[in-house]
Amino acid sequence: MFENSGRTELSDLGEFEFISHITSNFNKFVQAATIKGVGDDAAVLDTGSNGLHTIISTDMMTEGVHFDLSYMPLKHLGYKTIAVNLSDICAMNAIPTQVLVSIGISNRFSLEAVEELYEGIRYACEEYKVDLVGGDTVSSKAGLVISVTAIGQASPESITYRNGAKEHDLICVSGDLGAAFVGLKYLEREKRIFLENPEIQPDLVGHDYVVERQLKPHARLDVIKALSHAGIVPTSMIDISDGLTSELMHLGSQSHKGMTIYEDKLPIDPVAYQDCIDIGLEATMCALNGGEDYELLFTIPQSDFDKVRNLENVSIIGHVTEDEGKYVMISKQQNEYKLEAQGWKHL
Amino acid sequence: MFENSGRTELSDLGEFEFISHITSNFNKFVQAATIKGVGDDAAVLDTGSNGLHTIISTDMMTEGVHFDLSYMPLKHLGYKTIAVNLSDICAMNAIPTQVLVSIGISNRFSLEAVEELYEGIRYACEEYKVDLVGGDTVSSKAGLVISVTAIGQASPESITYRNGAKEHDLICVSGDLGAAFVGLKYLEREKRIFLENPEIQPDLVGHDYVVERQLKPHARLDVIKALSHAGIVPTSMIDISDGLTSELMHLGSQSHKGMTIYEDKLPIDPVAYQDCIDIGLEATMCALNGGEDYELLFTIPQSDFDKVRNLENVSIIGHVTEDEGKYVMISKQQNEYKLEAQGWKHL
Repeated sequence: MFENSGRTELSDLGEFEFISHITSNFNKFVQAATIKGVGDDAAVLDTGSNGLHTIISTDMMTEGVHFDLSYMPLKHLGYKTIAVNLSDICAMNAIPTQVLVSIGISNRFSLEAVEELYEGIRYACEEYKVDLVGGDTVSSKAGLVISVTAIGQASPESITYRNGAKEHDLICVSGDLGAAFVGLKYLEREKRIFLENPEIQPDLVGHDYVVERQLKPHARLDVIKALSHAGIVPTSMIDISDGLTSELMHLGSQSHKGMTIYEDKLPIDPVAYQDCIDIGLEATMCALNGGEDYELLFTIPQSDFDKVRNLENVSIIGHVTEDEGKYVMISKQQNEYKLEAQGWKHL
Repeated sequence: MFENSGRTELSDLGEFEFISHITSNFNKFVQAATIKGVGDDAAVLDTGSNGLHTIISTDMMTEGVHFDLSYMPLKHLGYKTIAVNLSDICAMNAIPTQVLVSIGISNRFSLEAVEELYEGIRYACEEYKVDLVGGDTVSSKAGLVISVTAIGQASPESITYRNGAKEHDLICVSGDLGAAFVGLKYLEREKRIFLENPEIQPDLVGHDYVVERQLKPHARLDVIKALSHAGIVPTSMIDISDGLTSELMHLGSQSHKGMTIYEDKLPIDPVAYQDCIDIGLEATMCALNGGEDYELLFTIPQSDFDKVRNLENVSIIGHVTEDEGKYVMISKQQNEYKLEAQGWKHL
């Protein structure tokens, strides 16, 4: 069945190229209620009118690709699958309300193991005040698969897409960057040591912050609420799952703009910074390309500067330019670097 | 991580017992918009008010469990994953409007193979007039995994749950039963023959109907529309994925009623009937326990008899009784059999 005369390997296409190729046939909507489909953090449906739109997003996580059960406790995994999906709803500037969770499991899991997973799911549902309203539980011949669909609500005026960034807008980011990636590196290092010598206990003492950032990321619902409270509607927004650079490029390409950021403005936690050095990584590189921070990256009009400057947990890291496709970082030494999806290059 | 002092094998619990156990902590809702969560064909959300509620359902299908790619063409698989999800929305007496599709794929699939899959998805979206509005595409270390979330709309008065069957209600079923299971048996037989002797070509001539019922089941949106047109709101409804008996029991247990059906009323396609005999199966058994027919099973008040009797594609097969938990089939010879989840037993 797979012997086509012309076979194109999936690896020949990038993820985004692949999705765009596959979904190119799906962009004409027949339902009047469909406002926005594929191409943002979530879909938008006009489901009625207490004035609110319904926001919906779905993610799949597979064992060995998105998580490694040798260092990811099931309770954390359950929490994380919910948090990263709610993060997509937040990235639309919407309030998450419900989730559906489907899991594919093999019989190597006991009931108690699945309960652990759901314990984490429940913990996240409680924290973010969302209802678990459905799902599916099926057998999987291979590893664990988790698919979560998250639903949220927002008023049409406050929904924030990726394509609204304007020239001179300020680029903002919540929280700090890079720590989740550093945490992953520590976990991987301890796993290697354990595999080489199972008698050595994992030593993660002192690295709690970065490890927790990897194992238990948060959806920045608090930031969405703070923005709303401050009267700020971002012009564009995305959550940072793949890394700052990659997400900057999404905002830039969908808004047809360029982005300039400043290395000395990148929010990096001091503990994560030291952990980076200790493990032989460059903190700026982790912040730019680490991924899995699940912080919010957004742009706001300069006129909102006074509103945003005093917000906790939000840093202004740069500004939007008219140079479409030009993504630049000004280094601490005032040199201009071209940002690239994995790494950066001196101009 | 999985070494618990008390380990309960998942196989020790039935599917429904397992789901009920896992979701028992999730039945207190914090969101005012959550009308119905786990426990029916789909969840119901009060998302606004053009008077409509949002209906949402999700299903996961895994390779080697829900489908066998050696006889399931990818295009059919794509179509089927959408159809079976829309069937859940129909089973709430709602009109499907959007879908989200996530797939986990390994690199043994080419781009062309994934295109085939999406071709089937697109075909189904067009047929049922639903929009594909989102999804996720991820790597899977093992087999193909597909997770679909379907969304629909219905007025609160017309939404049909599983728990509303009343004594003396008529039990109705759409289309015909058992053919999908017979089709599966033919496909499995041809696969065995092929594996034993790869030079023999599959011989499915004359069995098109049952094979198509297995490979390309339909969501009975036409029946939902016909019921609406006839002014019928069923008192309870479910779609037949696991088999008539199993679904009768769902309606019965959630409505706290018994169900009596008549063997001679079971709608069995004449071709499927002959195919059953040819392959050594009993047609009644296939109709009762075959599964994957994706027909609608529903109950209506006796007062709607005149409205339903002339509907195409709908058969009246029995009636609801007050004997909670008693599921009975009256045979062609007027004997009373107790229906059991897999099979039936003489009383």
